[in-house]
Amino acid sequence: MSSAATSGTEQAIAPLTAAAIAELVGGRLEGSGDTEVRRVAALDRAEAGDLSFLASRQYALQYARTRAGVVLLSTELAGLKAQPGPAARVVVDEPHAALLRLLPHLYREAARPVGIHETARIGRGARIGEALAIGAYAVIGEDVVIGDRTWIGEHCVIGSGAVLGSDVRLHAGSTVYGPARLGDRVIIQTGARIGSDGFGYTFEGGEHRRIPHVGRCIVEDDVEVGANSTIDRGSVDDTVIGAGTKIDNLVQIGHNVRIGRLCLLMSQVGVAGSTRIGDGVVLAGQAGLAGHISIGDGARIAAQSGVFGDVPAGETWSGYPARPHREALRASAATFKLAGMMRRLERLLTERE
Amino acid sequence: MSSAATSGTEQAIAPLTAAAIAELVGGRLEGSGDTEVRRVAALDRAEAGDLSFLASRQYALQYARTRAGVVLLSTELAGLKAQPGPAARVVVDEPHAALLRLLPHLYREAARPVGIHETARIGRGARIGEALAIGAYAVIGEDVVIGDRTWIGEHCVIGSGAVLGSDVRLHAGSTVYGPARLGDRVIIQTGARIGSDGFGYTFEGGEHRRIPHVGRCIVEDDVEVGANSTIDRGSVDDTVIGAGTKIDNLVQIGHNVRIGRLCLLMSQVGVAGSTRIGDGVVLAGQAGLAGHISIGDGARIAAQSGVFGDVPAGETWSGYPARPHREALRASAATFKLAGMMRRLERLLTERE
Amino acid sequence: MSSAATSGTEQAIAPLTAAAIAELVGGRLEGSGDTEVRRVAALDRAEAGDLSFLASRQYALQYARTRAGVVLLSTELAGLKAQPGPAARVVVDEPHAALLRLLPHLYREAARPVGIHETARIGRGARIGEALAIGAYAVIGEDVVIGDRTWIGEHCVIGSGAVLGSDVRLHAGSTVYGPARLGDRVIIQTGARIGSDGFGYTFEGGEHRRIPHVGRCIVEDDVEVGANSTIDRGSVDDTVIGAGTKIDNLVQIGHNVRIGRLCLLMSQVGVAGSTRIGDGVVLAGQAGLAGHISIGDGARIAAQSGVFGDVPAGETWSGYPARPHREALRASAATFKLAGMMRRLERLLTERE
Repeated sequence: MSSAATSGTEQAIAPLTAAAIAELVGGRLEGSGDTEVRRVAALDRAEAGDLSFLASRQYALQYARTRAGVVLLSTELAGLKAQPGPAARVVVDEPHAALLRLLPHLYREAARPVGIHETARIGRGARIGEALAIGAYAVIGEDVVIGDRTWIGEHCVIGSGAVLGSDVRLHAGSTVYGPARLGDRVIIQTGARIGSDGFGYTFEGGEHRRIPHVGRCIVEDDVEVGANSTIDRGSVDDTVIGAGTKIDNLVQIGHNVRIGRLCLLMSQVGVAGSTRIGDGVVLAGQAGLAGHISIGDGARIAAQSGVFGDVPAGETWSGYPARPHREALRASAATFKLAGMMRRLERLLTERE
Repeated sequence: MSSAATSGTEQAIAPLTAAAIAELVGGRLEGSGDTEVRRVAALDRAEAGDLSFLASRQYALQYARTRAGVVLLSTELAGLKAQPGPAARVVVDEPHAALLRLLPHLYREAARPVGIHETARIGRGARIGEALAIGAYAVIGEDVVIGDRTWIGEHCVIGSGAVLGSDVRLHAGSTVYGPARLGDRVIIQTGARIGSDGFGYTFEGGEHRRIPHVGRCIVEDDVEVGANSTIDRGSVDDTVIGAGTKIDNLVQIGHNVRIGRLCLLMSQVGVAGSTRIGDGVVLAGQAGLAGHISIGDGARIAAQSGVFGDVPAGETWSGYPARPHREALRASAATFKLAGMMRRLERLLTERE
Repeated sequence: MSSAATSGTEQAIAPLTAAAIAELVGGRLEGSGDTEVRRVAALDRAEAGDLSFLASRQYALQYARTRAGVVLLSTELAGLKAQPGPAARVVVDEPHAALLRLLPHLYREAARPVGIHETARIGRGARIGEALAIGAYAVIGEDVVIGDRTWIGEHCVIGSGAVLGSDVRLHAGSTVYGPARLGDRVIIQTGARIGSDGFGYTFEGGEHRRIPHVGRCIVEDDVEVGANSTIDRGSVDDTVIGAGTKIDNLVQIGHNVRIGRLCLLMSQVGVAGSTRIGDGVVLAGQAGLAGHISIGDGARIAAQSGVFGDVPAGETWSGYPARPHREALRASAATFKLAGMMRRLERLLTERE
């Protein structure tokens, strides 16, 4: 087996003509239908063999100068001028959605050679499935269980006793410790750490003594965890990430946290220990949640918010400390107005008293 | 030596009866004293063979429905009803503290095989102690010094010239660079980086030129560093983490920072270069400290605070920019009140002038 | 080839006398010109063989007690007393700048043995340059291109198809995925991740479906990326880091972000997808930028700011939500004043109405 090291990288496969594109997306072709493209590129970086798209008037200037061969654009922007303009244009209702539909025709996922690399180390008692791909220098501990068609990237370390489902992908250099249970189709990006010991101490005898961590770290089906993110195992409870939840890069999930299904946690979010998060919750970038609080189903937390109390289902909160978004906006606006009237206000108070 | 890859994972050892539990924690037994448990689990996830605990009325509903075999609960909650309820209950003053005392009777730390894995690489001139455990694919540079009974996890890299004490644990995939000096009983979690070059440049000749980093990175006895955290070496001074200080995941410590003894730095905290932190300081999650400031002994900084100036010993500060917590709370409360009276205030000012 | 594992660590080479120091920096020598020093250390940690410096009156007490052999100090501080004081002092206009000029005379960069470690794995079709140093257990994918004199640290993983320039340094345990293009003299610190898949989903059929990522990750000449930082590849556009830009530890750069030349991004900064950043921009620690916004050339964003809209060239913004720094300061000051006058204000409003 070769030492191929890849990400889940997409590779270009075959060219498409403008006419084929128009047919695939149900769009209106303008210009030369036999213009061929092989790749996708932004308007200002595209070359003659590239497909690009214009979804917003904000990029009209880039469109005017683009060298792309074919451009997808919306009906309302179809009248925009370009000099000399792309060889072909395809007018559709939603250029971005159309582009996503075309991607599988232009790219396919890089295949990963099936097999266990000769340098991979597999511990005693490990039960591994069929059609696995295990990369160079991966280390798999004792009694690990792995389902079928799972990919273990180069340099991954899987602790003794961990259980991984089928069609799981661990990207290079990630760590999955023994207390972890990963469902099917879970994706762990490079450098993520699953199931490490949490941060818990009692102060006794003049020192911080580590609380033993005996809980698990359960990552349900279809969860994705971003590069260099960290998810601690439970202390006496389990840490649980619900099915279909997606976690971005550099996110921290503390011990005993339970996150529901289909949530989105954006980059650099932090969730402190024992907090409960419902289903379909969105936490925007750098938001922080205190420990031992509850976030209701479908709630949305704005970027950089600091949440110190429970958030009811369906509500949008923002700010520091976080409040319902409308209140936070009003308070913020009032603060900026206040600065302008502060002198008048001081004079008035002084006169009156 | 096997390729066992483990975290400092706790493993279940032997069952305990409810009667034994009551005796160990000095509690009052109610129900069947010979009920056996083998593991700890939260009320809502516990099964018949599990020990659980109820410390707050907040979880009364989970208690009412729990399937746990034995539950520790406080005197004031001892009267709560459960259907059918656990087979045995043990009433104690502090259920959580009692649980922690029981953990060593239910779990023991996973043993790590002593020895140097055949794939580990050890550089010339390295002096290593007795009873070491060095995992698969670990790379140890030249002239490294390591004390007795230290564990080096799989894939760790220790740079030439680094010095590690006794009973140190480096978890898988962590990096300790040459300028680092680690004391005894230091724990470095998976993916943490100790002693990397700091962020320092001078702008000359139209470019940012790197300032050479020649300082050390000194991590004293009993320090713990969380997963994927980063601690830079000093530039011309040393970076120092004082004895007994505990650092959570994804924390950043800049060059020349000096942190005292027994501090707690929670997840995603950032400390900019050359800042001094006293003893017993607590920095809550996502707090940020500017460079070149001083935080006095015993100070506490609230989550997400942005600290731009010195904080006196013993004080609690919060907010952005951080102020004494009481002031910050008053300012925050006033801001939210202000929004409600803004229209009246504007009218008043207009009338008067 | 040995298994030497080093950072770009500086090593002490030869002693300097106080007289030589005075000559090298054009300073005035006071005391014993033949005092020798071999290392640099802060005033309070320096020993007799060390060079130290005093640039600010803030450290006068440390100066008074220092055991350093030679101290650089500024003209205005030259009169300060020390007991017994350093054996020699060198008075200069800018002690810190003088110190930086002296470093190359005291330290030299650790040499890295040229050659490919016997455990390194190199994929089919890889084209690698001359005088490379490739460390233990590095894994290089198929068709990778690497220029001359590049260093690949221990445990690095380079994905198939990646292109690296000359004089590049990848520190231990970093990942460069296939979509990445690294220019010359790029430095990637330990644990950084370049070119991983971004965070993009569409919600269809009751689940978050991953958007294929087909863009590149272009890191231009002289860029540096800090420990454990993450830079995602583009989705349909490219992610681009402009020449000479320096990125600190634990920074997140989302997909399709374009950063200009000579920017500084400090620790824990997060930049959400598709945002454009001009040349010479400074983003201070923990600042967060929303997606799809523009930051003009030379703009400066204060620490922890949350930027949700465009920032014009040359301006300094701060706060949450970020505003021009002067406005943000006024609003913040007004807020703290407000708390003190809230009761009087409430009474006044009640009386009037």
